[in-house]
Amino acid sequence: MNAYRPNPAETTFLLFDVLRLPQQLAELPALAEVADPALMQQVLEEAGKFVGEVVAPLNRDGDEIGCRFEAGTVTAPPGFADAYRAFWQAGWPALATATEDGGQGLPSVLEAVLYEWLSAANHGWTMAPGLLHGAYECVKHHASDALKAQYLEKLATGEWLATMCLTEPHAGSDLGLVRTKAVPQPDGGYLLSGTKIFISGGEHDLSENIVHLVLARLPDAPAGPKGLSLFLVPKFYTDGSGHSAGPSQARPAPSGGSAPHEVGSVGAWVRSAVVCERIEEKMGLHGSPTCVMRFDEAHAQIVGEPGRGLNAMFVMMNAARLHVALQGVGLLDAAWQKANAYAAERRQMRAPGPRVDGEAADLIHRHPAMRQKLDTQRAWVDAGRVLAYRTALELDVAKHHPDAARRASAQRWCALTTPVLKSAFTEQAFSGGSECLQVFGGHGYVREWGIEQIVRDARVSMIYEGTNEIQAIDLLLRKVLPDGGTALNQLLDELGEGLRISALRDMAQTVVKAAPSSETLAHEVAGDFLRATALVLLDWAWQQIENAAPTDDERWQRPALALHQRVLPEFEMRRQMVLARCAQ
Amino acid sequence: MNAYRPNPAETTFLLFDVLRLPQQLAELPALAEVADPALMQQVLEEAGKFVGEVVAPLNRDGDEIGCRFEAGTVTAPPGFADAYRAFWQAGWPALATATEDGGQGLPSVLEAVLYEWLSAANHGWTMAPGLLHGAYECVKHHASDALKAQYLEKLATGEWLATMCLTEPHAGSDLGLVRTKAVPQPDGGYLLSGTKIFISGGEHDLSENIVHLVLARLPDAPAGPKGLSLFLVPKFYTDGSGHSAGPSQARPAPSGGSAPHEVGSVGAWVRSAVVCERIEEKMGLHGSPTCVMRFDEAHAQIVGEPGRGLNAMFVMMNAARLHVALQGVGLLDAAWQKANAYAAERRQMRAPGPRVDGEAADLIHRHPAMRQKLDTQRAWVDAGRVLAYRTALELDVAKHHPDAARRASAQRWCALTTPVLKSAFTEQAFSGGSECLQVFGGHGYVREWGIEQIVRDARVSMIYEGTNEIQAIDLLLRKVLPDGGTALNQLLDELGEGLRISALRDMAQTVVKAAPSSETLAHEVAGDFLRATALVLLDWAWQQIENAAPTDDERWQRPALALHQRVLPEFEMRRQMVLARCAQ
Repeated sequence: MNAYRPNPAETTFLLFDVLRLPQQLAELPALAEVADPALMQQVLEEAGKFVGEVVAPLNRDGDEIGCRFEAGTVTAPPGFADAYRAFWQAGWPALATATEDGGQGLPSVLEAVLYEWLSAANHGWTMAPGLLHGAYECVKHHASDALKAQYLEKLATGEWLATMCLTEPHAGSDLGLVRTKAVPQPDGGYLLSGTKIFISGGEHDLSENIVHLVLARLPDAPAGPKGLSLFLVPKFYTDGSGHSAGPSQARPAPSGGSAPHEVGSVGAWVRSAVVCERIEEKMGLHGSPTCVMRFDEAHAQIVGEPGRGLNAMFVMMNAARLHVALQGVGLLDAAWQKANAYAAERRQMRAPGPRVDGEAADLIHRHPAMRQKLDTQRAWVDAGRVLAYRTALELDVAKHHPDAARRASAQRWCALTTPVLKSAFTEQAFSGGSECLQVFGGHGYVREWGIEQIVRDARVSMIYEGTNEIQAIDLLLRKVLPDGGTALNQLLDELGEGLRISALRDMAQTVVKAAPSSETLAHEVAGDFLRATALVLLDWAWQQIENAAPTDDERWQRPALALHQRVLPEFEMRRQMVLARCAQ
Repeated sequence: MNAYRPNPAETTFLLFDVLRLPQQLAELPALAEVADPALMQQVLEEAGKFVGEVVAPLNRDGDEIGCRFEAGTVTAPPGFADAYRAFWQAGWPALATATEDGGQGLPSVLEAVLYEWLSAANHGWTMAPGLLHGAYECVKHHASDALKAQYLEKLATGEWLATMCLTEPHAGSDLGLVRTKAVPQPDGGYLLSGTKIFISGGEHDLSENIVHLVLARLPDAPAGPKGLSLFLVPKFYTDGSGHSAGPSQARPAPSGGSAPHEVGSVGAWVRSAVVCERIEEKMGLHGSPTCVMRFDEAHAQIVGEPGRGLNAMFVMMNAARLHVALQGVGLLDAAWQKANAYAAERRQMRAPGPRVDGEAADLIHRHPAMRQKLDTQRAWVDAGRVLAYRTALELDVAKHHPDAARRASAQRWCALTTPVLKSAFTEQAFSGGSECLQVFGGHGYVREWGIEQIVRDARVSMIYEGTNEIQAIDLLLRKVLPDGGTALNQLLDELGEGLRISALRDMAQTVVKAAPSSETLAHEVAGDFLRATALVLLDWAWQQIENAAPTDDERWQRPALALHQRVLPEFEMRRQMVLARCAQ
């Protein structure tokens, strides 16, 4: 089994030569100072070492031993807790959080690279800090000063981990159906009760406290999504005065859910009335506990305004969606690395073409069907990295650029591309991961080589943080149709000229015109529309790579060829499918 | 968790109304007598009961408990051995074997239906009898009379199970590299030594004896595939005289591999020097032990002529390939049944279109993206059943039709369609199974609903019995190009007229003309060529269904629509990919 290794040199090429990162960051006063190429390169090299040496080696045990659940406690797989402690203490979670909150204030794109690598190396482990940045942004932008004083630095540095508690047994994609209740208390706090499912990292032993961000309803809230508010429920809490000991010295949660009444005892940490009832048995991702969490009059504080819970949560969900797209890119790269290494050292059958050595069989990568698979998946990975890094860069541009028009275009880029990247690259991590598995033949199906784990792990990314079908609806029905395609056209203008770009523009107009004629049309074409958009973005990303790469380098030539021969032909198929439906 | 249920009524429609089975069988003197519709219907109903009541309920334990390995013995999951005994005693393995060998002599197509259903209900369990028919045919057509006397009836009835021992650690797709040796002995037998891997059912407790068919080399054999001979190695053997006790009373295998020297003792069963060294940890299919088998001067008999081992094995491999295609069809049907049932009872979000009830959310199957998935996969399943049943019918036609030309056309059908069906339907079981998983949202990723097991189990079918890439090479390089496309054209003539049929014909001619210009071209387009052929066959199958189905029945209308809107557009994409490569 060959473990995943990050490749800082190629990453530097994509960031500096293809995306011209230093020049882009130089336009952002807040980041201009830290945009020093040498510094960024050093950060990437250190990150690569940490990922390759500390996190990657734990991946197999994460799958095979997995998380253990016993009487409400969850024990992470061997080494996970130590690795997280090292990660936090080295300051990695704080990479791109603000210096005033205890962070390092580096560009988001470096965090994007870090999480791509972490996901590739160990998807299960990476789930733990995966929601940190979103929780940090959510608290930073929506919580009261009092809450921020207690939680913001802990989240900014990663000393405490966070969860996002949305789904309930009857409410998955449709959060409007959430039933969890929060009852206001005289002290300004709330008692929160209900059951949440599919909570990644709801309970574990990686950090001494866990901060749950929970969607719930006030007693007088209207039905539907507008009745939702957001609450913060810590695993351990104190009233903030004189707590010399940390949460690990907390008293157990009082039974009967009367926790908040105990808070009076100064300096004592109390365990909230929130418990993990069980963890799910899953297809993969065994290194991450997927918890059923029961809140039983748990100590809660509101985050943001009543009834504005979804709004506050959106900050977190958008960050999470780009993060999931990066998981897809990383997992596909990990699968490719394994398959590529295997194909370069194992022999099987005679390949067509002249004999290259005296062996009885040829190396697997000389067989055309295998070569096609490897080059095609490489084309997806390289494009995915360019697109996801660019999106992370646009996050900073949207926040820090002095020019309002440029901020708006960055906002537009993120809004339009995030659902596309989330959907396309999680799909590709699974289907392309399966193609990489095929390179191993029968050996791909057994555990030994670790490739089947990637396929199992990757499958969930097509579902969580909004299923890929929700992403398609988000793109077409929420972001393209409402403004008649204007924002999409502006994005396409920025991408430049190209046959597929103008075909996508025309297709969007056809859908804009046809959609009002049928209540279901837009839903029916949304998936194909997203795929067509993804392929235009891939095409664009490879143009950027080809503009920067040496023209005679097989490393870039081969995936570029595979892109044109084996990936982009899908565009015309999707276009025809959309147009056929619109013509009905 | 809703278990798979066979659907004899729909099967009868496909067999009798779409494929006109009774009329087709009436042309075959050997089967005319048993081709009574009422009899066949009764067999199907009994088969459906057995599959649904005995085999399906064991599927979950097969996955979760799996096979246990201890000191050379393999214990099947709970209930597997009893179910196999009941299966054998009820005569199911003997359904389509010849009456003179102890079988029931029914048409192959009934066996095809039976194995499709078994695979859908419990893929792991079905692996055990899955190679029986092929082993029976192999022994029947290639073994000596003495060997037949000992083994043919046992295999025809399924009293003993069989394996196919091909792969070695360094020789998977390329059997020419096999190193296992067989050394002739003075008594006419052989001592066989070597290690075989990925042996399904190499050791288990389902039957009292196991018959291994093993590819090996004689000491003076030339290198490569022409040096391979086929051998029969029983787990237990006797010299055939006076064995009153069965193998279960056998003495243990003598150490040092001197087994054959012990045979003299009349009536005693001896255990061969073949041991299971371990079973693989796999992605799925935990109900079937995948064994590493060590032969250590094991008692062996030759099957067929020296150097003609691959030839003898081909009988078995072709039967196995159609069987694997049926696994794909069955597994996809099982996935569809689960998703369809879930989507018809669970609610999530508001679907577009008018409200149909007063509930806060709509049934999942009312959401267009989910409806498309369900209908698309149903289109694949229905077409797969028609195509696989037709192929099973053609197997009987090839054997029994009085007219030589009709026998030749049947042979052609089987040769050309088997690799296509094996590849296309195993691919679809995995990718379409994953689409069905998506219908469950997050619930699809947890074990509870059993849908993720189908996806894991199905993945192996793309690899074994010749990887799907080998199937593509088999189709194009061995069956289309050598005769300049003549056989394919004859097959297409039989399919009738149609845009895609003539496009495939033209495409084949383009490849025939372009192939000599490049050593790699045919390999490069083989996969796309197979996909295009598969889509033409799907189109044809659905024409047959639509000719027979009531025109106003949503059951058939919806998948027919999905076929045209969402499946067949791939044909033009594949055609363009092939043509673009040929034009280079």
